[in-house]
Amino acid sequence: MSQVLGNIPVSSNPNVLVDFRNSDDAGVFAWEAGPALVQTVDFFTPIVDDPYVYGQIAAANALSDVYAMGGRPLTALAVACFPKSGLPPGTIERVFRGGFDKLAEAGVALLGGHTVQDPEIKFGYAVTGAIDAKRVWSNAGAKVGDRILLTKPIGTGIATTAGKNARAPEGLLAAVTLSMRSLNKAAAEALVAARLPVHACTDVTGFGLIGHMSEVANASGRSIALDAARVPLFAGVRDIVAANRSAGLASNRAHFGVGVRVAEGVAGELIDLFYDPQTSGGLLLFVAPDAAEPALAALREAGVAASEIGRVTTRSGATVDIV
Amino acid sequence: MSQVLGNIPVSSNPNVLVDFRNSDDAGVFAWEAGPALVQTVDFFTPIVDDPYVYGQIAAANALSDVYAMGGRPLTALAVACFPKSGLPPGTIERVFRGGFDKLAEAGVALLGGHTVQDPEIKFGYAVTGAIDAKRVWSNAGAKVGDRILLTKPIGTGIATTAGKNARAPEGLLAAVTLSMRSLNKAAAEALVAARLPVHACTDVTGFGLIGHMSEVANASGRSIALDAARVPLFAGVRDIVAANRSAGLASNRAHFGVGVRVAEGVAGELIDLFYDPQTSGGLLLFVAPDAAEPALAALREAGVAASEIGRVTTRSGATVDIV
Repeated sequence: MSQVLGNIPVSSNPNVLVDFRNSDDAGVFAWEAGPALVQTVDFFTPIVDDPYVYGQIAAANALSDVYAMGGRPLTALAVACFPKSGLPPGTIERVFRGGFDKLAEAGVALLGGHTVQDPEIKFGYAVTGAIDAKRVWSNAGAKVGDRILLTKPIGTGIATTAGKNARAPEGLLAAVTLSMRSLNKAAAEALVAARLPVHACTDVTGFGLIGHMSEVANASGRSIALDAARVPLFAGVRDIVAANRSAGLASNRAHFGVGVRVAEGVAGELIDLFYDPQTSGGLLLFVAPDAAEPALAALREAGVAASEIGRVTTRSGATVDIV
Repeated sequence: MSQVLGNIPVSSNPNVLVDFRNSDDAGVFAWEAGPALVQTVDFFTPIVDDPYVYGQIAAANALSDVYAMGGRPLTALAVACFPKSGLPPGTIERVFRGGFDKLAEAGVALLGGHTVQDPEIKFGYAVTGAIDAKRVWSNAGAKVGDRILLTKPIGTGIATTAGKNARAPEGLLAAVTLSMRSLNKAAAEALVAARLPVHACTDVTGFGLIGHMSEVANASGRSIALDAARVPLFAGVRDIVAANRSAGLASNRAHFGVGVRVAEGVAGELIDLFYDPQTSGGLLLFVAPDAAEPALAALREAGVAASEIGRVTTRSGATVDIV
């Protein structure tokens, strides 16, 4: 996206608080009164076989962009591409229903949507939400010393690729599916309510852990030390990396690898997992050093199992330094 | 869309002012303070060969949904599907640039977007805007006696089909393209500024003139008398109807035809044109009887050539009665 927008002039509209310049998860625009507007759109091809679960994941993933800014999603429009024929009866309705139920869980109103005929299925949402303009968790705010927290395990891409080829270990696919359909609402709300100094935040999705870390590091003019051993992984996913790397993993490595330095001794399959494209991943939070413990406690209290996985450093030769 | 949403429960959220129930062009949601939020999303496959013009039309078409509610569009996110390879260099950038320039003309800020790889090109926008919650031009407000105005000629589907097959008459394609890339902003703003009693409004797009008239008639519980001879048509389009009917025209007829009655003597090619799917069509306005002349004057003043094409009647056996 940032490539095609590269030649588009930046808006001079003073109401634009966040736009595409820093690869943020959503745009933010000052409303005439009350909270600012957050706006995002996300949709993708099916990631699981069950249409209802696919709809749930698509909704959780789209809403996550609003949570990742520190906002509250309010309304959604479905974005749907389905073939004219060939699907089992009721498939489209089940996708919509899964999405609708997930929106309802989040307290988000479905206002409508747009459907086009397309040989390739795609589904997702355009979402708007409200946000306190003074507390926007943009990508550009990470400070040296910030501690980095991650709220969901890594490995959905490897696991779903294995699942498509019927070679995912027992239990792994269930754990990954449960994670992908889980909202990042509890995590975001807990931190907003605690008014903790979150300096930057993004959610981990298609660019993988390294890609999204790199975007925050670049937008903030910092580097990141990533502690490989502390990154939470889905149980069993590490053993199946070699046979289940996706094309997206390779393209993330090609795009972001130039800024990555890996210490000797870090296992290759961990690095693969850090490039693995995630769907509906966790929040990647950058918090002031003394706020990390209260943040972890607030997340625990909210039922969110977060891990501390690294630190922000001064800008160095490597954007992400894996140790 | 309304078919797949048929089994979705209606929201009980009191902030939802307009949702998908009445086939409206956009959703409307009460904001915490200030004007209400309008939200819409629209995208489609290329309708013209020139990528820059395609981007312009996609933007004008998406923004039109906000104008058709009586709102002011403020922000947009690009929704883009492009193949990984095979396009001439610079094609994607030109589509984005055309759209961006049209957004800029409308005073709308581009906040970002979402791009996916897709063998079939699609482009459009998710748009938000502001609206006075007391003056929403929904589909459900048409009253008996309302006079019906249309702000752009009919025939874009027939003409672009002919254009694809290199058999559009000289001048027709240029006129149609100019119309499709024209914003409905001047028309909407003129009527909002004049505070005229617009009871209902929609824009004429994929369902054709009859389809969108039917949606307003059904949402309002009225019927419509359409004066066939007064519907503005692009010069020359009437002569090429027979050879250039699209699949969309046939499907509009199949879907909406059951509610249509045609008086003897109305030419068949006119009926075809009334079913013809339009892209970035005009506003279809339903105004109180004594407001029609001031509305036409306000539109003329704003440089908009509007035509009066019919009246709202009490609900009868036919939804649309073509005389």
